[in-house]
Amino acid sequence: MPEELEQILDLNLPDKGLPLGDLLKDCRSTLKWQVKTGHPHFFNQLSSGLDIVSLAGEWLTSVANTNMFTYEIAPVFILMENVVLKKMREYLGFVHGDSILAPGGSISNMYAVMGARHKMFPNYKKLGLKALPQLVMYTSVDSHYSAMGAAASCGLGTDNVIQIGTDSMGRMRVDKLEEAVLATKAKGHVPFFVNCTCGTTVVGAFDPINPIADLCQKYGMWLHIDAAWGGGVLLSKKHRHLMAGVERANSVTWNPHKLMGTHLQCSTIHFRQDGILLGCNQMCAEYLFQQDKHYDVSFDTGDKVPQCGRRNDIFKLWLMWRAKGTEGFEAHIDQLFDISQYLVKRIKEMPEKFHLIQEPEMVNVLFWYIPQRLRDQPQSKERIAELGRITAQLKARMMNTGTLMITYQPLRELPNFFRNIVSNSAVTKDDIDFLLAEMDRLGNDL
Amino acid sequence: MPEELEQILDLNLPDKGLPLGDLLKDCRSTLKWQVKTGHPHFFNQLSSGLDIVSLAGEWLTSVANTNMFTYEIAPVFILMENVVLKKMREYLGFVHGDSILAPGGSISNMYAVMGARHKMFPNYKKLGLKALPQLVMYTSVDSHYSAMGAAASCGLGTDNVIQIGTDSMGRMRVDKLEEAVLATKAKGHVPFFVNCTCGTTVVGAFDPINPIADLCQKYGMWLHIDAAWGGGVLLSKKHRHLMAGVERANSVTWNPHKLMGTHLQCSTIHFRQDGILLGCNQMCAEYLFQQDKHYDVSFDTGDKVPQCGRRNDIFKLWLMWRAKGTEGFEAHIDQLFDISQYLVKRIKEMPEKFHLIQEPEMVNVLFWYIPQRLRDQPQSKERIAELGRITAQLKARMMNTGTLMITYQPLRELPNFFRNIVSNSAVTKDDIDFLLAEMDRLGNDL
Repeated sequence: MPEELEQILDLNLPDKGLPLGDLLKDCRSTLKWQVKTGHPHFFNQLSSGLDIVSLAGEWLTSVANTNMFTYEIAPVFILMENVVLKKMREYLGFVHGDSILAPGGSISNMYAVMGARHKMFPNYKKLGLKALPQLVMYTSVDSHYSAMGAAASCGLGTDNVIQIGTDSMGRMRVDKLEEAVLATKAKGHVPFFVNCTCGTTVVGAFDPINPIADLCQKYGMWLHIDAAWGGGVLLSKKHRHLMAGVERANSVTWNPHKLMGTHLQCSTIHFRQDGILLGCNQMCAEYLFQQDKHYDVSFDTGDKVPQCGRRNDIFKLWLMWRAKGTEGFEAHIDQLFDISQYLVKRIKEMPEKFHLIQEPEMVNVLFWYIPQRLRDQPQSKERIAELGRITAQLKARMMNTGTLMITYQPLRELPNFFRNIVSNSAVTKDDIDFLLAEMDRLGNDL
Repeated sequence: MPEELEQILDLNLPDKGLPLGDLLKDCRSTLKWQVKTGHPHFFNQLSSGLDIVSLAGEWLTSVANTNMFTYEIAPVFILMENVVLKKMREYLGFVHGDSILAPGGSISNMYAVMGARHKMFPNYKKLGLKALPQLVMYTSVDSHYSAMGAAASCGLGTDNVIQIGTDSMGRMRVDKLEEAVLATKAKGHVPFFVNCTCGTTVVGAFDPINPIADLCQKYGMWLHIDAAWGGGVLLSKKHRHLMAGVERANSVTWNPHKLMGTHLQCSTIHFRQDGILLGCNQMCAEYLFQQDKHYDVSFDTGDKVPQCGRRNDIFKLWLMWRAKGTEGFEAHIDQLFDISQYLVKRIKEMPEKFHLIQEPEMVNVLFWYIPQRLRDQPQSKERIAELGRITAQLKARMMNTGTLMITYQPLRELPNFFRNIVSNSAVTKDDIDFLLAEMDRLGNDL
């Protein structure tokens, strides 16, 4: 509880500095009371794990303590960005293109909306949205809330984001998308941007890229793929079919800090067309991006984003790629899928204790835990509601015990259920066995 | 040169992972070829230095590797944010208020525009800007380009940012501001947001807060203070007069990673009124911000920003504050001003070699270097143009020699000149003497 933790910790900012011994105590107690996101029993978030090379990369990054806006002060890191982003674009099938790192997937998605708006309506930058027709975006009901956020931030308004229904697997229904586009046109508004999610947050579903790309082509809309979560599958020969058609996208968000296990924060946004970012965001500040420098100023990246100062998030990923090699990433991704399939298999073997909600496409495994007293009841509306209540209670017990963390949430008509994520390559089958046994130990009397 | 560096470094991403020895070589060569921003002869940027406690803070942050969106996975760090941000609001004179860390000052300024828009026109979130009258922003010609960037990103359009002229010291002219506001109203547009800069990027000038606040009150405009650079002066009894009236602002940007010497990135945005951030940005994603958690969910901060995942930028600042104490920060700020005044004094002692452009308000010292051949010429338009050309040439020599880095830029009618920044407390008077001697050594034959 926050109130208790406030009592335990000494967080006060003193007038006079404290001696080194006190600071070491501060560090110890911070790590003691902080959640161990690198522990193989932390299944709570899409980002987890503690890759040791990525960690070393972060340490060196802090020592170098530089900003990424100019080649002048980040020469090595700017070149590394170019190499890594080009490599990632190869996996997207983008022959040329433009990419940048952004502070998280939500901002990456916002950059995509801004890039699309700039490309399709270059006037907006000077004149603002009031000079444009009403633009409308589409995204699935299961997509990440950042599509709504981008619409609010960029001034489109959340009413102009149409949420499209999903099929039983959580994938956008293409027929519903076309209906919505036609309804927009009938109103005299302009269908503008489709956000196609590859790896939804809860279900881990992949919207079908090719049929959505066909519609985008037919109606002149921008195709953005939010693969913040799913993007890593592109590195696996076995699983990249989930993103078939990705090369048709106009822009793609892909977060290495999720499925690829890079340290937080490492998020990328890619555009199929070259030069979009600079055109969209350039403000030409003479005091930073002097055009008469003694080197090729196209290496300066600061004017490509609304950020100005930009943290160095590339070195850890570059170093990790050197250490694992592309093959190492592939093995890592394949293993996460295998371990998740092992969890599915184990859940199915214990139908009295666990109820699998649906077959996963990815590493999100959705299920209820069934305590003793509900085990011999047939499934019913009431029982499902009760399983939902138990889910939140069991999570509270997990957190108080501190042995296990799995998140839960409701989804559409379903009440709360657990969503297990394996994104840490330290997780073994033994950890999965522990997970199931521990849930039963903590929850069987609920 | 980028092309040469690409030849020297092996940046290739291999299919098979490399052994540890190769990775160590990678790290060594990265640090070797990277610019030493912590070196006391690096005067190029507003952020510099390498505070060792802040560095330790970053290292622990990477080990903890967590996201800041919920108390659930960042309990200790969320509490630290609350403590530090409250302390900073005390220096702003905000009794209540709302604050958050953002990925850089430009994004902080964008959050301010979004917060103002939400507070003044709560409808925009749903309906978008097309439902509003045309909103207009004001900022000085010397302000940071992020005011323009925010207008482009948020959909207002850069034509609706009016740039107000400055006085001879680089401060916004309040009479010109009022003229512009009246002109906006005459057009039927709505004066909405004034961006008052405390510490401009080039000159280090402080726009006069009180008269601007009077105008904001008179015309019902939002007063934002961009103190990304200058904010640190609030910690100094001697220099905080520069920001007299700050408590009248509606929002303030303040970057500890600049004048306070915290590691990159550490940027804060503060609002005088409580609850603005949540109202503005909340999207209520049930899968992340469950309302039935077993703790007080007002500790979850993720829905207060458009970011979703947010990096932990607080621990390093908290730990640094524990180590230095408020008095330590005050001494640090005062010392930066003292050393800068020493540079001014030395420049004035050598009028044949250096020309001071204006008396600084802050630690930005603006000057030309005068090579041998121009020393006995009287000042003239042609001589000034020549000094501008020499500035860029001398910078190229600095970079090729690698002994010194100072940035340069033009400003309004002035051609290129040097802008020296002291923001690293390791800089001594000896380093300033070195700076001047080294410029003369490298440049006297230009």
